[in-house]
Amino acid sequence: MITPQTLKGFRDFLPADAIKRQYAITIIRKTFESFGFEPLETPALEYLETFSGAIGEDEKLFFKFEDQGGRNVALRYDQTVPTCRVIAQYPEDIKLPFKRYQIQTVWRSEKPQKGRYREFLQCDADIFGVENRTADAETVALSIQIYKNLGFKRPIALINDRALYTGVPYAAIVVIDKLGKIGEDGVVSELTRKGYTKDDAEKLLSDTKNKKPNKELETIFSYLDSYGMNDNYRFEPTLARSFSYSTGTIWEIIDPNFASGSLCGCERFDSLVSRFSNRSVSGVGFAVGFDRTIIAMEELNLFPPLTTATAVVVTVFNESLLPNAQKIASKLRAAGLATDLYPDPTVKLDKQIKYAVNKGAPYMIIQGPDEAAKDVLQLKT
Amino acid sequence: MITPQTLKGFRDFLPADAIKRQYAITIIRKTFESFGFEPLETPALEYLETFSGAIGEDEKLFFKFEDQGGRNVALRYDQTVPTCRVIAQYPEDIKLPFKRYQIQTVWRSEKPQKGRYREFLQCDADIFGVENRTADAETVALSIQIYKNLGFKRPIALINDRALYTGVPYAAIVVIDKLGKIGEDGVVSELTRKGYTKDDAEKLLSDTKNKKPNKELETIFSYLDSYGMNDNYRFEPTLARSFSYSTGTIWEIIDPNFASGSLCGCERFDSLVSRFSNRSVSGVGFAVGFDRTIIAMEELNLFPPLTTATAVVVTVFNESLLPNAQKIASKLRAAGLATDLYPDPTVKLDKQIKYAVNKGAPYMIIQGPDEAAKDVLQLKT
Repeated sequence: MITPQTLKGFRDFLPADAIKRQYAITIIRKTFESFGFEPLETPALEYLETFSGAIGEDEKLFFKFEDQGGRNVALRYDQTVPTCRVIAQYPEDIKLPFKRYQIQTVWRSEKPQKGRYREFLQCDADIFGVENRTADAETVALSIQIYKNLGFKRPIALINDRALYTGVPYAAIVVIDKLGKIGEDGVVSELTRKGYTKDDAEKLLSDTKNKKPNKELETIFSYLDSYGMNDNYRFEPTLARSFSYSTGTIWEIIDPNFASGSLCGCERFDSLVSRFSNRSVSGVGFAVGFDRTIIAMEELNLFPPLTTATAVVVTVFNESLLPNAQKIASKLRAAGLATDLYPDPTVKLDKQIKYAVNKGAPYMIIQGPDEAAKDVLQLKT
Repeated sequence: MITPQTLKGFRDFLPADAIKRQYAITIIRKTFESFGFEPLETPALEYLETFSGAIGEDEKLFFKFEDQGGRNVALRYDQTVPTCRVIAQYPEDIKLPFKRYQIQTVWRSEKPQKGRYREFLQCDADIFGVENRTADAETVALSIQIYKNLGFKRPIALINDRALYTGVPYAAIVVIDKLGKIGEDGVVSELTRKGYTKDDAEKLLSDTKNKKPNKELETIFSYLDSYGMNDNYRFEPTLARSFSYSTGTIWEIIDPNFASGSLCGCERFDSLVSRFSNRSVSGVGFAVGFDRTIIAMEELNLFPPLTTATAVVVTVFNESLLPNAQKIASKLRAAGLATDLYPDPTVKLDKQIKYAVNKGAPYMIIQGPDEAAKDVLQLKT
């Protein structure tokens, strides 16, 4: 006999959880489409070279192997890089500007810990082929709208521009990005370990904190204002986003009522497509951190009471009344109600009732012989 | 520069195709739920031993490798075996009967050919823990209803019972299963190659063709009749289903107007859970062949005219009118219309119009300065 077990960092989603996930995915998908973004799907497996060199220091996190044909392949590590490949691969089909969303699983061989898994869902939206900051404003607005539609009271986009870090080495940007986690003392001491003097480190941090928005950011802010999102963004000069490919606008979505960090990471990236093509195609967009978003929704009680996809369980009083139960189920299904007909007429009614209760179905129907004769039924809640 | 390419047998779905797939998935998901089935998700990677030994002769088709921790792992080969693992792994959470559906990707290292890929979607529904044939009738009815809801005029379930093959060796069952593809002569000659005399082979085939439904099948047929599905099934004594784990009821869905074979494979399987547990838990259900179903829907013109998720493109006449365009887009989105605001106000109007036409959006909105002054707009179709 084989021990039933899942691999470390991988999860089963039993119905109650799968239903919650589906509820959130449906809202996210609809919001993407409400902003004119189109769905795209790319394969779970790609040639390793598609990813390698694009992600920076994270390549040890690839799930990679040699396939039966001796090809070096990797599981989808992110969705932005494959989309850049798609744009280069189908120049006739993909017209610019290209607004696409993608809701698929990605795999990273991280050390599993609370809230961090080796297999997780990403919900991405990006605009490709627009340098004008209107595209940034549209994607910021979309990222805010997603959290509004999920029920968050006041999602806030913390916005910055990588251009404000001109002249700052990438290694220092990575340290400043940790400010929220390790605090100012932590940043200064980590910078000094990287070769800064204490004075220089303190000056870099204080200069960063005192930066003012540039013209590009002001443009984005005024667009957000005309969307009526005045309360949903904030200039945050210490926000750095640690991806090496980030350029221009960077932002994250937080909720003041959720303390465990940002829900969504977002940036402009203007050179990724050129890995695959001579075309220079800029991009701007974000990835919803789906697991963290679900955790926040649970903490903030944003899910409706969902434990089952079923609205009503039709019980079967006995085998000879099964055709009646089937007719009732047919009618309810035709009326659009998710209807579970108990699948075994030989099982006693009390066990069937227990099944309906366990399942959490809001309604249950019982029709005994007397009721069947009168063509009526009992509806229990 | 990296050549942008996909691996053999793997596909990108650009928006027009992704939208079609999503259209079909939504109908299938709703139909599953309308019959009281609950969603389940399992990981893409499992311990290799979860799959090995369960599938029979197909193990060379596994995508398997050693992960960074030295574990032998395999990509999800099917969804029935992982569900059996789940039932064994969470005895407290999974109450029987358990009706679950699963819509996830599976991977098989097959030789790619027309309509056969190495990565493809499966849509499964199964009832676990019910030996009574009412469960079989429910899943047959569900499989028919899916194709009705997808728009097929007259989907037909070809139904048989593996019990009618009692005494016939599995190797011969596999041959008879090919009858539709290789014809009677093909079956007879392949059976002789497997050691049958020509007379015995002919007798086996003719006996098989002349079988009559057993009591269990009659029960299922009468359930289907009371669902009003009299025209949607047929007893088919030569149907064999080549899976070694099939027991009891077996069926496939075909459409008489679609010549390229069955759309959905279905069976009872009464011993799979026992691989993982001492509990004996029977199962019955099916997997929608999603790719073939999509091909059939295209052939039979069952898709509505879908090329974009976007209902309307709002153009931006010039940069100073962008706030007006944003207000129009906001209102339309709030009214539930998928609204694409052109993301670059510096681009000339004719190029924006071309974008909307290319995208296939049914409506386009233009508001110039005169119209903005009067607070009206032009709606173009």
